[in-house]
Amino acid sequence: MRIYGMNGSGNCWKAAQILSLTGHAFEWVETVSGAAGTRSPDFLALNPIGKVPVVVLDDGTALRESNAILLHFAEGTPWLPQSGLRRTRVHEWLFFEQYSHEPYIAVARYLKSWLRQPHLHEARLADCATRGAAALDVMEQHLAGQPWLAGEGATIADLALFAYTHRAEEADFDLARWPAVLAWVERVAALPGISVIPPLAEILPRAS
Amino acid sequence: MRIYGMNGSGNCWKAAQILSLTGHAFEWVETVSGAAGTRSPDFLALNPIGKVPVVVLDDGTALRESNAILLHFAEGTPWLPQSGLRRTRVHEWLFFEQYSHEPYIAVARYLKSWLRQPHLHEARLADCATRGAAALDVMEQHLAGQPWLAGEGATIADLALFAYTHRAEEADFDLARWPAVLAWVERVAALPGISVIPPLAEILPRAS
Repeated sequence: MRIYGMNGSGNCWKAAQILSLTGHAFEWVETVSGAAGTRSPDFLALNPIGKVPVVVLDDGTALRESNAILLHFAEGTPWLPQSGLRRTRVHEWLFFEQYSHEPYIAVARYLKSWLRQPHLHEARLADCATRGAAALDVMEQHLAGQPWLAGEGATIADLALFAYTHRAEEADFDLARWPAVLAWVERVAALPGISVIPPLAEILPRAS
Repeated sequence: MRIYGMNGSGNCWKAAQILSLTGHAFEWVETVSGAAGTRSPDFLALNPIGKVPVVVLDDGTALRESNAILLHFAEGTPWLPQSGLRRTRVHEWLFFEQYSHEPYIAVARYLKSWLRQPHLHEARLADCATRGAAALDVMEQHLAGQPWLAGEGATIADLALFAYTHRAEEADFDLARWPAVLAWVERVAALPGISVIPPLAEILPRAS
């Protein structure tokens, strides 16, 4: 099995994390953005959307969309309730993550700490600050009353939201403002087998 | 059962459509944006994210996120494969819809045909035009080779993408550019029990 991914990406982290947690060995293929990577003909044949992560099974089947990859490998494990309301709660958080959280927190982190060009994106970053804080407010309210996002134990809902939340300071969100979220981040990070994403300053080449 | 929704919204259409298709009676509660509606304390108690649609079951349980609602009511029906790769393909399209399609096609439709304020959002609409076309390109490539998005029959992947695609002309996308998508829109609309969203010009009050 192979993962095409980018080191430091929370969406790609999800793929590696669920494969590790469910006992799958995999090869990581570091993939760059653009014509030499995600826009190359070979890559577009794997994923016409031109985005990482992509997981390629041993029979050549390509799986796309980080949260669909979480659902695929969590099926039949304690990371995903089998059916009913508990499973629906997991789904709700997965769509919340992709629609109301990632586009603001991951995007702000990308512009500030990956591209390091916040001066070119002031209006967008202001929008990310507002909407990212709103997403963290929703998590705070929920996690103030229960230890995990969906039900009695950790699920892929926790993995999906952990991906960019535990590096939110790189998007200039100070989690001290959201103490229940911060406690939950520490709770997820302490689960057996969880890896954390290193700070981007350690991953990316230093600005010249 | 009740749906809190907005007439004309594709995301809210999904909730009504899957309830109808799976034989559930429901009451529609038309809900406005803002302090009198989606930001009221009563509504926020149902959905802390402050968004429609919300489906409230007879026991008071509130379900949020349009694609999670599709998954909830499609479970155990032909609209959702039970497990394995066919189910994962449905998930991939559901996340594609919320991440790569809705934020450009639904948002452009909202700014142009709902608010009717395109002049205030020129940069955003240019981005929507590019990224919305890219989403339709991905659908075109896929639907040129098969009649339905995921597998051998219609699934909730088709319902999710139909929601805003069949009204994409209100976002200034001319589906004649995407003939396989246009043929698929007609194929979905012809399925038994499918309702279409009326043109916004018929739904919204006329500009004064």
